[in-house]
Amino acid sequence: MNLHNIRIVMDQTYHPGNIGAAARAMKNMGLSSLYLVNPRMFPNEEASSRAAGALDILEQATVVQSFEEAIHDCSLVIGTSARSRTYPRPVLNAKESAEKLITEAQQGPVAILFGRERMGLSSQQLEACQYHTEIPADPEYPVLNVSAAIQIFCYEIWQANNSNSMQVKIAANEKACYPTHQETESLYQHLEEVLTETNFLFKNHQGEAMTRIKRLVNRVRPEQKEVRMIRGALSAIQKAVRKD
Amino acid sequence: MNLHNIRIVMDQTYHPGNIGAAARAMKNMGLSSLYLVNPRMFPNEEASSRAAGALDILEQATVVQSFEEAIHDCSLVIGTSARSRTYPRPVLNAKESAEKLITEAQQGPVAILFGRERMGLSSQQLEACQYHTEIPADPEYPVLNVSAAIQIFCYEIWQANNSNSMQVKIAANEKACYPTHQETESLYQHLEEVLTETNFLFKNHQGEAMTRIKRLVNRVRPEQKEVRMIRGALSAIQKAVRKD
Repeated sequence: MNLHNIRIVMDQTYHPGNIGAAARAMKNMGLSSLYLVNPRMFPNEEASSRAAGALDILEQATVVQSFEEAIHDCSLVIGTSARSRTYPRPVLNAKESAEKLITEAQQGPVAILFGRERMGLSSQQLEACQYHTEIPADPEYPVLNVSAAIQIFCYEIWQANNSNSMQVKIAANEKACYPTHQETESLYQHLEEVLTETNFLFKNHQGEAMTRIKRLVNRVRPEQKEVRMIRGALSAIQKAVRKD
Repeated sequence: MNLHNIRIVMDQTYHPGNIGAAARAMKNMGLSSLYLVNPRMFPNEEASSRAAGALDILEQATVVQSFEEAIHDCSLVIGTSARSRTYPRPVLNAKESAEKLITEAQQGPVAILFGRERMGLSSQQLEACQYHTEIPADPEYPVLNVSAAIQIFCYEIWQANNSNSMQVKIAANEKACYPTHQETESLYQHLEEVLTETNFLFKNHQGEAMTRIKRLVNRVRPEQKEVRMIRGALSAIQKAVRKD
């Protein structure tokens, strides 16, 4: 399959050389869709030099101002992180992530998110991901350079795409259809509205409730039609409550 | 197992940044033995900066003047190359190479050789390898940056070292014992001597014969005691010939 539906998202990259190296790693492995969230310097000479034969990937890269813009139309978002997770989420290894991305890219855009050098992804960004992923590494020094990490994920994506057993999994998955990030966000808003109107939540004093609910929804991963059903129920509740 | 017997050899590296990135990739995956053959600039600030938390790997790196020095005591040498091979040799993928290196590193040092940026390994260097290896990549642009390639091999080495099925293979291989590069070179010299003394080869007009013989020996991969036996036979021939 064509890998254009698999998006590499780099958040607030500090060293432009890493952007170039990422572009080369992508092109080596047949990927083409690079999103840059607020890069510190771009376009940039060092980025172009490190990209070598992958200048076209840099030229076609999409620069956006927020990570939500980069993932709003994605039905699957995987966040990379080097251990130290506050929120428990299913953690995939690089190979498993590649297989998930390949499988779901059949239906539409999917993304894998890489945080800023030294800082990684924020907890808000990790909250927006259905899965977290990490590269197996030596616990003594497990922090890979961001472009080296991208190289490994791209390599696993290329391999998964060329494995026969994956083709079978892809065929089996063809019926599942997940909501985009935007549709999921709308569901959260709707939930929050209803829970506020019903006095379960209090405006400005929500505490951890919405975070816990989001975590739960992500773990369940409702399909698109299930989301529609939930929203139908929410609308019915609103209607009933407002009548009172 | 401890991975110190697995040597990463970088030949005539042009960009010092690649040396630093390689050191970091190694440390991330538990490797420590870096050999640099005639690096253009080393030590170097850019190398140290790209090494980040792996400065110790750079400080312990061994700088040598020829690639033979880097591999003379190795019983297994794997050469990386991006297709275009003139000499047919068994070609492993990255995962298979990692498994071979892990298995044979039980007995002593083994090496994986990375050529200079843009040029790759020379045919003389590739001749010295028992296996060639390549990273599966998009045929449209299959040439990875050297430190990105090192990252992938180190990642596969780390994974092979932590897989249970590999532990079984390692145990099964414990009896095999291969000659070092130097012992193999001595065998070639001995062969050449005998073939010259017996007028099979003519000094200065050898043609392709020795190259073909080396290729054959590498394909067979005689064990250390087989090499001793062959050399015994060669000595007997010499003795008989010289008596005439």
